[in-house]
Amino acid sequence: MSVETMVLALELVGTFAFAVSGALLAVKKGFDIVGSLLLASLAGLGGGGVIRDVMLAQGVPTAFGAPLYLIPVALAALLVFLRLIREDRLRRTLLAFDAVGLSLFCVMGSFIAYETGLNPVACVLLGATTAVGGGALRDVVANEVPQIFNPDGVYAAPAFLGAAATTTALELGIFNAFAAVGIAAGIFVIRFLALKFRWRVPLAVFRPGTIR
Amino acid sequence: MSVETMVLALELVGTFAFAVSGALLAVKKGFDIVGSLLLASLAGLGGGGVIRDVMLAQGVPTAFGAPLYLIPVALAALLVFLRLIREDRLRRTLLAFDAVGLSLFCVMGSFIAYETGLNPVACVLLGATTAVGGGALRDVVANEVPQIFNPDGVYAAPAFLGAAATTTALELGIFNAFAAVGIAAGIFVIRFLALKFRWRVPLAVFRPGTIR
Amino acid sequence: MSVETMVLALELVGTFAFAVSGALLAVKKGFDIVGSLLLASLAGLGGGGVIRDVMLAQGVPTAFGAPLYLIPVALAALLVFLRLIREDRLRRTLLAFDAVGLSLFCVMGSFIAYETGLNPVACVLLGATTAVGGGALRDVVANEVPQIFNPDGVYAAPAFLGAAATTTALELGIFNAFAAVGIAAGIFVIRFLALKFRWRVPLAVFRPGTIR
Repeated sequence: MSVETMVLALELVGTFAFAVSGALLAVKKGFDIVGSLLLASLAGLGGGGVIRDVMLAQGVPTAFGAPLYLIPVALAALLVFLRLIREDRLRRTLLAFDAVGLSLFCVMGSFIAYETGLNPVACVLLGATTAVGGGALRDVVANEVPQIFNPDGVYAAPAFLGAAATTTALELGIFNAFAAVGIAAGIFVIRFLALKFRWRVPLAVFRPGTIR
Repeated sequence: MSVETMVLALELVGTFAFAVSGALLAVKKGFDIVGSLLLASLAGLGGGGVIRDVMLAQGVPTAFGAPLYLIPVALAALLVFLRLIREDRLRRTLLAFDAVGLSLFCVMGSFIAYETGLNPVACVLLGATTAVGGGALRDVVANEVPQIFNPDGVYAAPAFLGAAATTTALELGIFNAFAAVGIAAGIFVIRFLALKFRWRVPLAVFRPGTIR
Repeated sequence: MSVETMVLALELVGTFAFAVSGALLAVKKGFDIVGSLLLASLAGLGGGGVIRDVMLAQGVPTAFGAPLYLIPVALAALLVFLRLIREDRLRRTLLAFDAVGLSLFCVMGSFIAYETGLNPVACVLLGATTAVGGGALRDVVANEVPQIFNPDGVYAAPAFLGAAATTTALELGIFNAFAAVGIAAGIFVIRFLALKFRWRVPLAVFRPGTIR
């Protein structure tokens, strides 16, 4: 499989995963099916790919220009509507799909930034932004405190790690379809372990003598 | 009247309508006159036209480059300040102006996207985004759950319908100033009927046996 | 010192000031150190410079393209984490740093817009947007009502004043490094006096017979 095909496939899977997280949040908030489609679009398209493409200033964002990207969004809202993706263990399911999107988008964001010719630091930054942007926009527009700020969990750190690993692989010339899937899988496992074992990072201010 | 003049006129009317909705929300939230101007700008300029122009990647957004667009915004904040647009039946007045903006911007958004050469699906998507973006940004920045997610109403669906009708008319070569006003009027009527008769769309998840 | 060096220096100081305000808000909201870095980035980079650069459509925003801008953000989060910038008089400290950022960014925003060739009205508008954008994005993403809408204070008005003064100085050909610092200092003093003496602007609606 060529790298181009792989990028498209991973982008579509990541879009689907974030779109499911948006549709599930719409269920949780009691929104209707149109709200579900909109929140799925914001999470799957708007927060990640569109922000990335606007930052890269490469013309019309792919999500607007290529109708293909609407399919995973519509599919996500439909599967949630038909309860083929169940919302009865809602929090857990939402977190799982969100983690898939996070893992794929940090890799894709850095890769596309690198292809556009950005310096490595910018590639890491843009990869992480692409990964956390979808979830952040989804939560902000639904009037929730974004998941990225939940101190009971490790969310943005794996995104930065995945973006850094991707950029390093690109710099070393060893990035290919296997590396992309491998890094994404590694980041998913880290996010999963972080949730399971309740890993935490230090608070925003150092408090000697306190144990979290 | 040329199509260019009509587009400008409808854009200014739509900007004014959304700006009034922003200024009225500022009154409802107890903001000051500067906050009213800012929220009127976000609703009238930022959410609709600026997002559309950034997506189309056609240089500096019209709302920033053309000072003319500031006039309807300033006028809206002034009329609300002077109570020439009364806030005593606030919710209803806000909804009416919001509906005018919604109807005009779905037509304008699709038309401008079409002129830029986007494919039809993208034109529908961008028209709907232009229409719902102003209200969404207004509500999010004022820390309210956006109107688009209110399940007791049909809001984004008419925007999509208007964008689709505009794009179809453009594809068929029958789009002109009359068609623009006609589609906008039709969408306004649909939004009005939806509010009056409390139309609803299904919730984000299908629940057999429940009647809404 | 050349104007270019001065612009860069003032941009970095403004970025640092807004980044501190973001990190302090992260402490107040109980976020972790990664959340602090993200909120510092949004306040220091995302809201001001990135929005300005996207509006000006001049390619990849400086904050993404130039890794140098990450240093003041990281420094801000670190100083807040180590309590070298104390959070025990949190509200006051946050307001002070926010005011420094506001003062510098209205000058820088207008200057950069002017250099790009925008008309004077657009320069004022973009300067004020750059100044209030960082704080607005910081507050919206942290799920707070933005400071710009707090009626107990004068926030956006000084930003508009500073942007107008900068644009006037540029039009008159008397803008230089001294003028930049002078205008920023003047705006800071106005914002400080407004806070100290509880200046207010009229509410969004005129109510005869009421005294605020």
